[in-house]
Amino acid sequence: MSESNAVLIGRKPVMNYVLACITLFHGGAKEVEVRARGRAISRAVDVVEVVRRRFLPDVKVKKIGIGTDEMAPRGGDDTPTHVSTIEITLTQ
Amino acid sequence: MSESNAVLIGRKPVMNYVLACITLFHGGAKEVEVRARGRAISRAVDVVEVVRRRFLPDVKVKKIGIGTDEMAPRGGDDTPTHVSTIEITLTQ
Repeated sequence: MSESNAVLIGRKPVMNYVLACITLFHGGAKEVEVRARGRAISRAVDVVEVVRRRFLPDVKVKKIGIGTDEMAPRGGDDTPTHVSTIEITLTQ
Repeated sequence: MSESNAVLIGRKPVMNYVLACITLFHGGAKEVEVRARGRAISRAVDVVEVVRRRFLPDVKVKKIGIGTDEMAPRGGDDTPTHVSTIEITLTQ
């Protein structure tokens, strides 16, 4: 999948990301990948559910993957920290 | 799957739920389902990642499902609210 079809979920309101997904699909994308890390994971699920239920009922969840990213140590701590990740692939 | 093999994620520390999963697998469970709603969804992913990476490397993610639960209106509001859900099925 081309990187331009990825929506990276941050701290903005859910509707910002919903609009990003809808814009990609309306622009002809067959697949959109919603990605998030850490606490934004819950918001990623919210985004997908709003897209599917309220705006684009034909969009299906093709695949959901979870994983762990290792973050560089920071602030005097020697051990790397870990953060959970999710990637939800939507298709229409 | 029997209900006793479900671990419902709430607001306790991640390790509490990790221990619950490990206990179920050590007790002979072939599958464990980790479930969460709303903001606890991120913690559910954390739990699964810690179980797999640190304690039980043979455990695989069999299936991940997301959805929406409708909550009864409360506090003078007439419209029902919605909350996202996740179910992660682990197998060994």
